[in-house]
Amino acid sequence: MSLISPDSWVLLVLDDGSEHLVNISSKLFVTHKGRIDLETLVDKPFGIRGKTSKGVGYYVLEPGIVDHIFNLKRRTQIVYPKDAGFILLMLDVKQGDKIVEAGLGSGALCSVLARYVGDEGRVYAYERREDFIKLAKDNLLRQGVLHRVEIKHKDISDGFEEKDVDSVVIDVNDSYNYVGNAFNSLKNGGRLAVICPTTNQVQKVLEELENKGFIKIEVWENLFRAYKTNPQRLRPVDRMVAHTAYLVFAVKAFRKESVEDGSCEG
Amino acid sequence: MSLISPDSWVLLVLDDGSEHLVNISSKLFVTHKGRIDLETLVDKPFGIRGKTSKGVGYYVLEPGIVDHIFNLKRRTQIVYPKDAGFILLMLDVKQGDKIVEAGLGSGALCSVLARYVGDEGRVYAYERREDFIKLAKDNLLRQGVLHRVEIKHKDISDGFEEKDVDSVVIDVNDSYNYVGNAFNSLKNGGRLAVICPTTNQVQKVLEELENKGFIKIEVWENLFRAYKTNPQRLRPVDRMVAHTAYLVFAVKAFRKESVEDGSCEG
Amino acid sequence: MSLISPDSWVLLVLDDGSEHLVNISSKLFVTHKGRIDLETLVDKPFGIRGKTSKGVGYYVLEPGIVDHIFNLKRRTQIVYPKDAGFILLMLDVKQGDKIVEAGLGSGALCSVLARYVGDEGRVYAYERREDFIKLAKDNLLRQGVLHRVEIKHKDISDGFEEKDVDSVVIDVNDSYNYVGNAFNSLKNGGRLAVICPTTNQVQKVLEELENKGFIKIEVWENLFRAYKTNPQRLRPVDRMVAHTAYLVFAVKAFRKESVEDGSCEG
Amino acid sequence: MSLISPDSWVLLVLDDGSEHLVNISSKLFVTHKGRIDLETLVDKPFGIRGKTSKGVGYYVLEPGIVDHIFNLKRRTQIVYPKDAGFILLMLDVKQGDKIVEAGLGSGALCSVLARYVGDEGRVYAYERREDFIKLAKDNLLRQGVLHRVEIKHKDISDGFEEKDVDSVVIDVNDSYNYVGNAFNSLKNGGRLAVICPTTNQVQKVLEELENKGFIKIEVWENLFRAYKTNPQRLRPVDRMVAHTAYLVFAVKAFRKESVEDGSCEG
Repeated sequence: MSLISPDSWVLLVLDDGSEHLVNISSKLFVTHKGRIDLETLVDKPFGIRGKTSKGVGYYVLEPGIVDHIFNLKRRTQIVYPKDAGFILLMLDVKQGDKIVEAGLGSGALCSVLARYVGDEGRVYAYERREDFIKLAKDNLLRQGVLHRVEIKHKDISDGFEEKDVDSVVIDVNDSYNYVGNAFNSLKNGGRLAVICPTTNQVQKVLEELENKGFIKIEVWENLFRAYKTNPQRLRPVDRMVAHTAYLVFAVKAFRKESVEDGSCEG
Repeated sequence: MSLISPDSWVLLVLDDGSEHLVNISSKLFVTHKGRIDLETLVDKPFGIRGKTSKGVGYYVLEPGIVDHIFNLKRRTQIVYPKDAGFILLMLDVKQGDKIVEAGLGSGALCSVLARYVGDEGRVYAYERREDFIKLAKDNLLRQGVLHRVEIKHKDISDGFEEKDVDSVVIDVNDSYNYVGNAFNSLKNGGRLAVICPTTNQVQKVLEELENKGFIKIEVWENLFRAYKTNPQRLRPVDRMVAHTAYLVFAVKAFRKESVEDGSCEG
Repeated sequence: MSLISPDSWVLLVLDDGSEHLVNISSKLFVTHKGRIDLETLVDKPFGIRGKTSKGVGYYVLEPGIVDHIFNLKRRTQIVYPKDAGFILLMLDVKQGDKIVEAGLGSGALCSVLARYVGDEGRVYAYERREDFIKLAKDNLLRQGVLHRVEIKHKDISDGFEEKDVDSVVIDVNDSYNYVGNAFNSLKNGGRLAVICPTTNQVQKVLEELENKGFIKIEVWENLFRAYKTNPQRLRPVDRMVAHTAYLVFAVKAFRKESVEDGSCEG
Repeated sequence: MSLISPDSWVLLVLDDGSEHLVNISSKLFVTHKGRIDLETLVDKPFGIRGKTSKGVGYYVLEPGIVDHIFNLKRRTQIVYPKDAGFILLMLDVKQGDKIVEAGLGSGALCSVLARYVGDEGRVYAYERREDFIKLAKDNLLRQGVLHRVEIKHKDISDGFEEKDVDSVVIDVNDSYNYVGNAFNSLKNGGRLAVICPTTNQVQKVLEELENKGFIKIEVWENLFRAYKTNPQRLRPVDRMVAHTAYLVFAVKAFRKESVEDGSCEG
């Protein structure tokens, strides 16, 4: 059974429905619903229930990856879990994979990729803004996956330094400019994902993908809708996220024929 | 560089856009677009390009998890990758996790869970129909993750044998009947996902979740829409999947208060 | 050319994007963007442009039905234009139609129906709350269609007084209780629409529709999504309405066979 | 009560769920479910029930506008009722309106507009293909609204002949080329709708709308989803229409200021 330690991140779920991601080392949690002395939680198991100084009940949970993502410190639009889970599968991410990520941002997608490549895998994350790097490092550290990420404070217009990587993710404004660099870095059969907020970007990326010879090109968008959880009045919530990004996927393949009519040529 | 072996599964992507998942050991691939002598592909790298006997170009790719899922042998409605990726993150699946799955079906979701729990993890998959078990075994073997799955040909109304598991997934018609069993099997802070095709099922599951004391209850559905990939005429496809399932999530927590006003009670 | 009169309703569209539905008779419009002396607009044509006392540009438009609906005084959830336009067509509303509406509410849907039945048509609107009736009257008057609506402050559990009506719309919480009354009021071939916020209501309405012998039963929901209008960055808005209501439609037909094998029986 | 006449259009709704729009004058309806002698239906009321020669029950309904649209003869992509109802309200269509429609196509949207402008209104429908005109005429005649439509076999690049119209709808491939012509035809405060299948078209139309000085520019798309109607298993259908068109709306206003600080300038 997992116990709370003096520097654990915990998710406090109050009975009023509010959720708060806090570190035990901050010692005191104060809200208008009352005060929680965090130090008293040390050595207790996750999942316990308590009451604030004002008598409001709360649960102490181990934060999941979705809790981390929605609560991470950020200055950028983040890649949402709904998109991240789909990207993970479309890129066929496996333990041990080497992945190039262009545009680390706040580190939300990176944290998902880093979790699932495992200790043998590696994410090479390029980011040109130092303030984002600082932020993302903190977020990755918090989730215990920073050691799987090699952060590169470099300009990606010179190309990516890694070769034969399993997949590449591009999440920068002018993504279409780096499709060729992605092709050069990918192994044959390697997979590319490009995250595009606008239709104009998708159009330009599609042109580049064709030019560079990518195959299995797909464009997706997804709408996630939550429901109110009253079983007597089951219905969707009133408002929802209308758009995060269009997701473009493609696969790199050899451009020349090497097998013909059953006879190998190359 | 990954080479094709005599018993590799390969994804043939023909220039007419069709895709075929075949095993090299089947030796010959025949379609109206021509014949491919699969044995000539052995020891070639994935990603190569060839031509059929009728001169139609094709690529040979290493199938990804999404290719496997959409091409798996099945007799059941499968859990789609769009849902599977989201479930994975909502359940906070990590390497080493122990997961109970009630309703193995064709093994689509199981293959995703088994991939990401790693060799140290385990999926305990309950299924009462022997024909489904046979089918799912084949699908899991094909993806190289069968050794991470313990398949149980048992009636789940007696409860699950595993205790303190990290998460439980229920994907059977009368899922609401097993919410209590899931509660008993989960560790504190463990996460539950219930896959419900109908609103009636969601309503009953929500009632049970409240009764059993689950917290952080959420209901989601997602709509994935593909786009045509012509950059000069970017627009969604004409028709799309309208519904797969409603996804219900919840977390188990201690039901009694053990910490109050900062003072531990239990 | 349509001129602004001393008691016209006008839609002021300010250059900051804000819109305000005001009556000229209120004489002065004051906002933090400046003051507009409404009397100076009298006898000007709709469509003119002016500046507020603080120099902010604005247009004066004749409000459309959608502007009226979104700006109407209300105490209830309104039927949105997206739903109203679809209901109108599904009910096959024509000039001269007689329509029963159970649940007038704020009068949003009623204003659409009343517009399109014309002066020869009639909407019989039942409402048990007097405060709603007062509100709706005001809204219908504003749109110039009050004379086409017969408002009835009555309990609909006794049935509707009208017979052989072209269509019936039910928009009350316990709508399933009035499906039989609707059947009795409709002409043969008449059409019914039931507006249901929750899935539970839809289920009960469907049961009743089957019981009463309705045919051509359909259930729809619609998602409307707006886009940002920057042509260089075309993309959906960030957030949207996730749900208004499920729309259930059905047609009344004779329940007994009156024509068989080409030979008339009844 | 409305009776079936020898040249009525009727909607046959068979108990197997199939629907057929036929004219009584065609005398015999034959399907694999049996034969119906249509002449025996004459002088019967709409809504009756009969049996085919093979004993399959059917209803005879008066077709509604939605039935007509989905069953009309067509060679073009039609404007769906879901879009047509929304366009109707967004254009604020009223009895007596004058509307220019560029791109008559099969006449689906035209039939909706023509119905609701009434006998005092008029739709001026431009179409350059004679085969479409023939088809649309037939469809409009069938719905009894042809007399409200002035069909023009003309090239719209020369502009529209009508001035001061209440609204303009453009539904042609290169719609962006006619935004200026629409501006010239509209009255001040008049409303424009442009129907765009692709994002590229939307982008170009938005540029033109800005150039020409339109205001209140909006872009919408809508997703309609049907549900299966089994109350014990309420859930959406399996597949749905993913896309029909993006709908762009705008209002024409005076481009120069004529009222300032409350003082009229011209």
